[in-house]
Amino acid sequence: MSEPEYQVRPIGWVESPLVDRDAAPKQGDEGSPDAWLVFHPDVGEGIRDLEAGTEILLLTWLDRARRDVLSVFPRGDPRNPVRGVFSTRSPDRPNPIGLHRVQIVAIDGPRVRVRDLEALDGTPIVDVKPVLEPLGER
Amino acid sequence: MSEPEYQVRPIGWVESPLVDRDAAPKQGDEGSPDAWLVFHPDVGEGIRDLEAGTEILLLTWLDRARRDVLSVFPRGDPRNPVRGVFSTRSPDRPNPIGLHRVQIVAIDGPRVRVRDLEALDGTPIVDVKPVLEPLGER
Repeated sequence: MSEPEYQVRPIGWVESPLVDRDAAPKQGDEGSPDAWLVFHPDVGEGIRDLEAGTEILLLTWLDRARRDVLSVFPRGDPRNPVRGVFSTRSPDRPNPIGLHRVQIVAIDGPRVRVRDLEALDGTPIVDVKPVLEPLGER
Repeated sequence: MSEPEYQVRPIGWVESPLVDRDAAPKQGDEGSPDAWLVFHPDVGEGIRDLEAGTEILLLTWLDRARRDVLSVFPRGDPRNPVRGVFSTRSPDRPNPIGLHRVQIVAIDGPRVRVRDLEALDGTPIVDVKPVLEPLGER
């Protein structure tokens, strides 16, 4: 590939009781625990309008994923037919960016508590976006 | 910051009539045109199960964005109160990852036609994910 590469610089990391990938839930709403998002002091201005009670889209870098995988058994189950990785939510993929819709339950300075996050302890945070309101309510 | 950096390697790029950031729609459903996603031959195995008629989440690297911006006027309008960038969808942000929900309308080998994409011509593609079915239908 002749394209340039781009550098992702983490803006914080996840603190979670989840440490074992094989034991972790596959999605946030499948029994994931609450977790802390711990932001770097450098991005305090960027997070200042986050609010408890709202939902956000959290983007992470799944740093324990394999990047050389292009097809997988969905949900890691070999009884499922193999699928191209871009038709799955497998963490193993060329650019292992995790996308998590989570609710903020508390904010303590640079620490933001969220519900139902399946990311492992120590996972780097790369972005946070608001959930978009429907067209006409923006 | 002492954290490591991570390298994003584009898996393709956007072909679009949109070339001017200031003139481009802010969201896909605000009058954006159809566009082609052109994937690298290397990831053909990964896209083989994409299907016309379905919706996908497209992740891009907004390569014309500023990365040193932590607060913005939402929608670029100085009449709006300044907000921390992680409470906005501004392209200018520390890790300028674009998130676009688009419908596939046609597939021609490594070229995938999608509706209503606000990304500019030449924008690198970094990931594609399926829209998740509601819990219980996975």
